[in-house]
Amino acid sequence: MSYGYFRIIKGEFDAVENRIREKLSENGFGVITEIDVRQTIKNKLDIDIKPYKILGACNPSYAHRALTDEPDIGLLLPCNIIIEDDQKGSIRVGAIDVEKMMNIVENNALREFAGDINELLRKSIDSI
Amino acid sequence: MSYGYFRIIKGEFDAVENRIREKLSENGFGVITEIDVRQTIKNKLDIDIKPYKILGACNPSYAHRALTDEPDIGLLLPCNIIIEDDQKGSIRVGAIDVEKMMNIVENNALREFAGDINELLRKSIDSI
Repeated sequence: MSYGYFRIIKGEFDAVENRIREKLSENGFGVITEIDVRQTIKNKLDIDIKPYKILGACNPSYAHRALTDEPDIGLLLPCNIIIEDDQKGSIRVGAIDVEKMMNIVENNALREFAGDINELLRKSIDSI
Repeated sequence: MSYGYFRIIKGEFDAVENRIREKLSENGFGVITEIDVRQTIKNKLDIDIKPYKILGACNPSYAHRALTDEPDIGLLLPCNIIIEDDQKGSIRVGAIDVEKMMNIVENNALREFAGDINELLRKSIDSI
């Protein structure tokens, strides 16, 4: 069972990151958090892992609607995008499956538009 | 059904935020992302909401272990803490329920230590 939507893309890490940022923006998402996982693990534990970033994407209108219907939803925001070097010459990009995440929230008001958010995230990934 | 662990604390927003940051640090978590939700909603939509922040807490050792056992777990990192003004003179602080979040991941290796992370997050909140 997967909880994300993934695509493998030929290219350089930085170029793919720039493309997904551009596509997220075109689909109404701002990137409001960014974690360089490799750098963080290196700094804190001095362990080397493959290039890996987490971008936190937020569509302000959907976020506001979600917070209005379910004030605690901040525990699950923003919508994460992961970018990782697969070490085989390609970059793997994934977006959280918002509908699946709603399984732990159990609020029908949110289920109504979780699919719309998934669609925009997947459109962003598909158009890289 | 809740997906978080909450406590209501008498005090000012900023003071409570400083305290939870201090306690998270004492329990091995760095705060690696921060979202001022009120400010974001104001800037993007020009709508006023109550003071509300999301802090992304990360324990590097557990994060590394989780990423090793389940590379896609970045879709659900970091562990969110929410801080909100309840508009009744108190501040509500909550931490994501990591064990509950594991219901959508279905990887037994992660279930083994999800409870330990919950314990540290709850200890942080209880000691504010």
